[in-house]
Amino acid sequence: MTAPAARRGRPRNEDADGRILEAARKLLFERGYDRFAMDEVAARAQVAKTTLYRRWPTKDHLLVALVARIQDEVPVADTGDLRRDLVVYLTAVATGLNGMRAVGRPGAPGDRSAGVVAELVAAAARHPDVGDAVRALFARRNALPLALLDRARERGELRTGCSSELVFDQLAGALYYRLLVTGEPIGAEYVEELVDQVLVGAAATPRPDPRPERT
Amino acid sequence: MTAPAARRGRPRNEDADGRILEAARKLLFERGYDRFAMDEVAARAQVAKTTLYRRWPTKDHLLVALVARIQDEVPVADTGDLRRDLVVYLTAVATGLNGMRAVGRPGAPGDRSAGVVAELVAAAARHPDVGDAVRALFARRNALPLALLDRARERGELRTGCSSELVFDQLAGALYYRLLVTGEPIGAEYVEELVDQVLVGAAATPRPDPRPERT
Repeated sequence: MTAPAARRGRPRNEDADGRILEAARKLLFERGYDRFAMDEVAARAQVAKTTLYRRWPTKDHLLVALVARIQDEVPVADTGDLRRDLVVYLTAVATGLNGMRAVGRPGAPGDRSAGVVAELVAAAARHPDVGDAVRALFARRNALPLALLDRARERGELRTGCSSELVFDQLAGALYYRLLVTGEPIGAEYVEELVDQVLVGAAATPRPDPRPERT
Repeated sequence: MTAPAARRGRPRNEDADGRILEAARKLLFERGYDRFAMDEVAARAQVAKTTLYRRWPTKDHLLVALVARIQDEVPVADTGDLRRDLVVYLTAVATGLNGMRAVGRPGAPGDRSAGVVAELVAAAARHPDVGDAVRALFARRNALPLALLDRARERGELRTGCSSELVFDQLAGALYYRLLVTGEPIGAEYVEELVDQVLVGAAATPRPDPRPERT
């Protein structure tokens, strides 16, 4: 049941939050990190600047909340087929990261910049409260793929001696390392190879080579 | 043979480079990224500012050269024992990354910031020429551990279907992911677990669980 009175007058906080985050998303993708301005977000979302700054004191705080919203739009399915579920999830992560590379920039071919993800990594390192927010975001989000791995271990598919965290570090780590450090591409084929490779290492019973020598 | 004349008068370029890089190293560790100033480097290295800026136009360019110098101080041994060589090398990498976390900051206990590494990642994303320099740096440096993995494959220890790049992405990726994203610690025990886990996945013949269930 909804109380009609709540729909009248000033919008409820969650309405304002939603409008702010959607305005922030559009502005970020139009402008990129450098030219992303809080005042413009407030104007587009039709909220008072004080409302915006009370909720998110800097653009980095707001962008962390936006990343949380974007991450939450990627489902983490548990179909019982661990390989497939990991490939689907990590392909979506890679697509999201690749999309963030070109945000607000002309996106020239061969552009290997990590884009806005690198800016948020630096903001997290610079400001302890932004860092706390980023780490909380990833802890919350990573709980979903970690649970996938835990359930596969309960089904006897993964070795008991190898932790889900270690397995997930190898998977997500490889994608972020390519994005942030080496600039190598992270495409769908790479994600499949990576998942196959990591699952050989994590399997409860020795598995045959998923990619035998190509002759 | 050295020509005595070359020792007199203005120092040769490599002397100036060395003095600049050593001054940069000291200043970075004293001050951190934010308060690292090029003019101060020139003064301490006793070189003209024009000399410094001609060689490295911004502090990010200079810091990439400094990271190259620091990386080159870490040897990559090839003793024929792949597991040991990887553990030694990656422990040194982790120690270096942990050291960079606290550079120029009070280093409070529980501080999980990625520090100056995150700043360089952001600079690489922001400025195409810094990005090119960082990627060239890692391509050059990573050639050494990649060669270790290639030689182990030639000895029949690693599967032919799994590329050295993919194996190394899992190793280095996990360390950088913890440093830059989740803020989890990267200690010596973690490095050993990681190497064991990745080598199970990469082994030519199915290997037993290196870490059976602890009861």
